[in-house]
Amino acid sequence: MDEKNPNFKIAVQQGFAQAAFPRELGIAFVDCGPGWCESSLQLEPRHLQQDRFVHAGVQATLADHTAGAAAATVLPAAGTVLTVEFKINLLRPAQGESLTCRAQVLKAGRNLTVVESEVYAHSQNERALVSKATVTIANVLY
Amino acid sequence: MDEKNPNFKIAVQQGFAQAAFPRELGIAFVDCGPGWCESSLQLEPRHLQQDRFVHAGVQATLADHTAGAAAATVLPAAGTVLTVEFKINLLRPAQGESLTCRAQVLKAGRNLTVVESEVYAHSQNERALVSKATVTIANVLY
Amino acid sequence: MDEKNPNFKIAVQQGFAQAAFPRELGIAFVDCGPGWCESSLQLEPRHLQQDRFVHAGVQATLADHTAGAAAATVLPAAGTVLTVEFKINLLRPAQGESLTCRAQVLKAGRNLTVVESEVYAHSQNERALVSKATVTIANVLY
Amino acid sequence: MDEKNPNFKIAVQQGFAQAAFPRELGIAFVDCGPGWCESSLQLEPRHLQQDRFVHAGVQATLADHTAGAAAATVLPAAGTVLTVEFKINLLRPAQGESLTCRAQVLKAGRNLTVVESEVYAHSQNERALVSKATVTIANVLY
Repeated sequence: MDEKNPNFKIAVQQGFAQAAFPRELGIAFVDCGPGWCESSLQLEPRHLQQDRFVHAGVQATLADHTAGAAAATVLPAAGTVLTVEFKINLLRPAQGESLTCRAQVLKAGRNLTVVESEVYAHSQNERALVSKATVTIANVLY
Repeated sequence: MDEKNPNFKIAVQQGFAQAAFPRELGIAFVDCGPGWCESSLQLEPRHLQQDRFVHAGVQATLADHTAGAAAATVLPAAGTVLTVEFKINLLRPAQGESLTCRAQVLKAGRNLTVVESEVYAHSQNERALVSKATVTIANVLY
Repeated sequence: MDEKNPNFKIAVQQGFAQAAFPRELGIAFVDCGPGWCESSLQLEPRHLQQDRFVHAGVQATLADHTAGAAAATVLPAAGTVLTVEFKINLLRPAQGESLTCRAQVLKAGRNLTVVESEVYAHSQNERALVSKATVTIANVLY
Repeated sequence: MDEKNPNFKIAVQQGFAQAAFPRELGIAFVDCGPGWCESSLQLEPRHLQQDRFVHAGVQATLADHTAGAAAATVLPAAGTVLTVEFKINLLRPAQGESLTCRAQVLKAGRNLTVVESEVYAHSQNERALVSKATVTIANVLY
């Protein structure tokens, strides 16, 4: 997976720092490379549902935002990314101290990039895959 | 679409009042009946992306939570609902003063309920369909 | 929903007549207009699963192909359509004498069109919605 | 991934041999183990679209049927499987001499199993990932 933009890492970091909603949630950039991005979220009571599990909306936001960042690392030219659609399967009730997300580009095209995001819940010494998303992203080139 | 639980409206209202994450976002219950639920969200700067549009995660949270509420109105017996998976298409950039969501049950089964959620953005005198989700929900019966 | 191509109906009919796989299955064009298309399929034993129900692959083919035809009716310029992705929910076991499909454009854009396809099973005097798909289609303009 | 049924391989092979539609298409069982199944399809002109590429419906049928077989290898008790919904991304135009599919269980639950199917096109000395599906499958236990 070749990056086209030598400064993609700065652009991705800015995407996390400047996006109001992921910042409001507490989503943090971890690292990225050509075709992938990782992020994390320290869990707080405000992230939960009526039961004690993490709300699907939190997992979806983490999966979608990190997928957009992964797509941004392989943009074919100067531009930005826009989510067209995504599907997420909630595999297990999510609980623990934190979530992490790994987004990996499955196919990078000129107009569309398809990314897979895996969301893990971490508690004590355990790590569990709690959801997986497939995200279709449009490249908006300047 | 027949409700099985005469008190479903109270249960749905509690679902909105007690779920930490939708409450944190500002999602409000509007109304519900057998097989449907409506909700709304006054938009604030914290709901946006790096551009001025509403983050996909906000729309997904609204679509998913309202779908769960719609499914709860047709639970075949005492129990609760759990999202199995959903897909959302972001149809237009979402902006305006508020979002509303209408979730409608497409198929109510004993174990699974399929719901469609439409998210609208409202600004001045305009209303635009900005996203549509299909949500598969498991009935967890006590 | 405005058509851009005055000859779209001929193009859609050719799409059904010339596509080998839908023709092999027996899928027939019924009618179309700006933003929608309808098709049908007389069911035969070869369309079934190991049980007596219609295979999900048959329903998916019908839903996808008819969605592409609906998207072709609103192509913004001379070109063709290509399915990017679709999701289908199988709502009920499908059986009967025939299937019909109604595909309706939800959002027609310059590059992408989103279409919803409903598949119905017909038997004697009954009609049942057996599956529903959301299809994202790329416009490939010449 | 533990199998619960010591005879799962025979059941899976029967699923391919007895299902009319996959047999009609020419889909062949290759191999399976606990949590996975592989299948193949020799391509013929009847599998194509109006252009020279493999129809999305063929790929969807292959992905769905092989996913069901993978889910059958981890059924928690005697029973059968039923597709609830699936999403497929068509990543590249598919052409060549044959398709193969590898389906891998992502999460095996008591009631639901989530499977990922990758479809590859083979031509000469090349192999390309042409589509990927996520399939939610219900376990119907006797």
